Amino acid sequence: MTLDAVLDHIDANLPQAVDRLMGLLRIPSISTDPAYAADCDRAADWLVAELASLGFEAAKHVTPGHPMVVAHGGEGGPHLLFYGHYDVQPVDPLDLWHRDPFDPAVEETPKGPVIRARGASDDKGQLMTFVEAMRAWKAVTGRLPGRLTVFLEGEEESGSPSLVPFLRAHAADLRADLAVICDTGLFEDTVPAIITMLRGLAKVEFTLQGPDKDLHSGMYGGAAINPLRVMTRILGGLHDDQGRVTVPGFYDDVDELPEPIRAQWQGLAFDHAKFLGDVGLSVPAGEADRTPLEMIWSRPTAEINGLWGGYTGAGFKTVLPAQAHAKVSFRLVSRQDPEKILASFQNWIRAQLPADCSVTFHDPEGSPAGHMQIDHPAFDLARAALTDEWGRAAAYVGCGGSIPIAGWFKTELGMDALLIGFGRDDDRIHSPNEKYDVACFHKGIRSWARFLARIHG
Amino acid sequence: MTLDAVLDHIDANLPQAVDRLMGLLRIPSISTDPAYAADCDRAADWLVAELASLGFEAAKHVTPGHPMVVAHGGEGGPHLLFYGHYDVQPVDPLDLWHRDPFDPAVEETPKGPVIRARGASDDKGQLMTFVEAMRAWKAVTGRLPGRLTVFLEGEEESGSPSLVPFLRAHAADLRADLAVICDTGLFEDTVPAIITMLRGLAKVEFTLQGPDKDLHSGMYGGAAINPLRVMTRILGGLHDDQGRVTVPGFYDDVDELPEPIRAQWQGLAFDHAKFLGDVGLSVPAGEADRTPLEMIWSRPTAEINGLWGGYTGAGFKTVLPAQAHAKVSFRLVSRQDPEKILASFQNWIRAQLPADCSVTFHDPEGSPAGHMQIDHPAFDLARAALTDEWGRAAAYVGCGGSIPIAGWFKTELGMDALLIGFGRDDDRIHSPNEKYDVACFHKGIRSWARFLARIHG
Repeated sequence: MTLDAVLDHIDANLPQAVDRLMGLLRIPSISTDPAYAADCDRAADWLVAELASLGFEAAKHVTPGHPMVVAHGGEGGPHLLFYGHYDVQPVDPLDLWHRDPFDPAVEETPKGPVIRARGASDDKGQLMTFVEAMRAWKAVTGRLPGRLTVFLEGEEESGSPSLVPFLRAHAADLRADLAVICDTGLFEDTVPAIITMLRGLAKVEFTLQGPDKDLHSGMYGGAAINPLRVMTRILGGLHDDQGRVTVPGFYDDVDELPEPIRAQWQGLAFDHAKFLGDVGLSVPAGEADRTPLEMIWSRPTAEINGLWGGYTGAGFKTVLPAQAHAKVSFRLVSRQDPEKILASFQNWIRAQLPADCSVTFHDPEGSPAGHMQIDHPAFDLARAALTDEWGRAAAYVGCGGSIPIAGWFKTELGMDALLIGFGRDDDRIHSPNEKYDVACFHKGIRSWARFLARIHG
Repeated sequence: MTLDAVLDHIDANLPQAVDRLMGLLRIPSISTDPAYAADCDRAADWLVAELASLGFEAAKHVTPGHPMVVAHGGEGGPHLLFYGHYDVQPVDPLDLWHRDPFDPAVEETPKGPVIRARGASDDKGQLMTFVEAMRAWKAVTGRLPGRLTVFLEGEEESGSPSLVPFLRAHAADLRADLAVICDTGLFEDTVPAIITMLRGLAKVEFTLQGPDKDLHSGMYGGAAINPLRVMTRILGGLHDDQGRVTVPGFYDDVDELPEPIRAQWQGLAFDHAKFLGDVGLSVPAGEADRTPLEMIWSRPTAEINGLWGGYTGAGFKTVLPAQAHAKVSFRLVSRQDPEKILASFQNWIRAQLPADCSVTFHDPEGSPAGHMQIDHPAFDLARAALTDEWGRAAAYVGCGGSIPIAGWFKTELGMDALLIGFGRDDDRIHSPNEKYDVACFHKGIRSWARFLARIHG
């Protein structure tokens, strides 16, 4: 009965919930760019105020990076810690957006209304599904449904440098019976999903230096080494002609998928053609002997995320540049060790440098892949709640992205994590014109209300 | 006697000549960037006024691009056409300049005073050597030494798109007995040089397109093709492990150096170690079986002048980009045809594209290599004039750069060209902190005064 009233309240107050989300979306909390540090701080303040208004004891904690928001509230039942992040990705290339990324609006589309803005899906819209579910409980019952901690960070899109030290320093304050993380997606547009495997991530930027200054290619071309030539030769060999990564030892700690999981994945109605077709592609680009689902969920990758050097402006400049730069990242699976992979990659580059060319590496960092404890009782409760809301059994799936927080909750606080989210594949997260479907936001809020009823009911 | 008076006048008025050059250097006439079009126009006006003050009938001619300056003056003797260019290269990366590139100053250095500014050497300082020589003749004798045409363009650093149509439309106005081009360098710091071979240039920009939007490497990494992976694989194969360019047919029209030229070059005291050491290098990077002098004067090259794609800002963004871009140019020699080379390069790229990746080429253009007529009588006169000034016999040398105007003067106007310049290898043309030695400027003016005395005397 209470749950029905909570769900009705959610339905009746959806417009106000969308308006609140837009308030958060207007804050350009880009964590990777120091120019937006004050905006990250403002987003944290905004969330502290929201949580305090729900009866939480909420605080903003200063870190060497962007602040952490921690809020405690409610009593009884299993103690849940809810995690999300208020920071967002950069917005370039800005000219591909059809509206200001920080001036959100509800837009009508053939698939229904969407909230358009940077962070609409990743992760501001998603974290607000949980906040709005709690708000509805509080409005209907006068109290929070059970003991809850909310923990929101502002560095997820920039490697979370302050996170592990913060977890260690505030372990007693943060430890709960289960962590709940809302930063993932549906399996298909209308099929809810619970993540059971997460890929890890290792990344590094590096600079190749040839001549000690930019040169005129007429005067020096042919005799002086061009670092872009070295860069393309080395990174052009990062994959072999079967799509396998060539860094020595890269696959040493990669396990084959257990047969039951492989069988379950084969049973999922994953539309490979549509997955690639949605982004203008048709041929899977990964290892030749793997399915696309394996490529994105259970196989490691190497990607060049950025590469630049020489003259990149309008017109032409026949320069022979002094430097070439690249940002390379690896998605990791199984037991792959980020430090070992990064060390092997750096050695692999050094071994290929010609005389007269040197390399400098910047900020190597990484986190391993994660595997969830699906025998934790909350998994069955969550699955049941999701099935109630969506009318479809929730899928246990892998996740190609890296959400290192799940691993850190386990290693630092001994907490298992449950990853549920309501994003869609076409949300364009990290890309221009990011959006979050109003339907996902709405049913996401309802899903959390049902989940809270099952956990704390 | 007259020549001595002219040389004395030059010596006595050097500070004023430097001041005038600084006036021209203050105009940021970057031709490749449309934002500086008004500045290019202003530079043309400045030169018209200077030439008019010397008694020339000078005019600025509007073109679809930047204006041409044409000035006629003097009477008698062989009719010389003097060519230079008033446009300059872009200045990026601006943070590597130790002063504003358009706020010129004379700086003291261990090798003597230099004029520091974009264009100080290429080509404003050089073109002003000729103007100042004429000024001295006019000041001492009351008239120009003989019949002279001055022809200055503003598009040399951006491919001279208006030049050939202008030569055709104004052929009668521009045809002279000999073209004199001042846009090259000394052989060594104190050895004058006359260019007898010039490399040609072919260049093209292109874009590889993979997905139709930027993707999240967590969601799509491994399954979607990354155009930076394709770009590095293709351009990483542009040279083989012997340093040879792999584009099919690239060497078909490359002739071996005639034995007498090779012998003469071997007699030149070219310090390979110093040439590379000046820019922080030690190992010649070109074809393994060629000398550095061949690499830069008589062998063709392929260079990546610019390459970019993905996230290139501060921090990290795990994007899988939709596009990758490159600017590639070729230095051409012998009978290499720019159109044939560019077509072969484009076909070579297309043939290597995977499914799901397309290419668009932008603005392919080029000009062939040039070979001077050293049996023209002016060559001996020029050599004698240079030897008088520098106390060293002028070297007949090749030039790694591309000065297509020499070829166009021949094909469009039937005019031979004499290329003499006073730049030094360490002038940093096209690079940050470009400079022109005051000594080069001074002796360059004196060299032209001596040359005019020999030609018109």
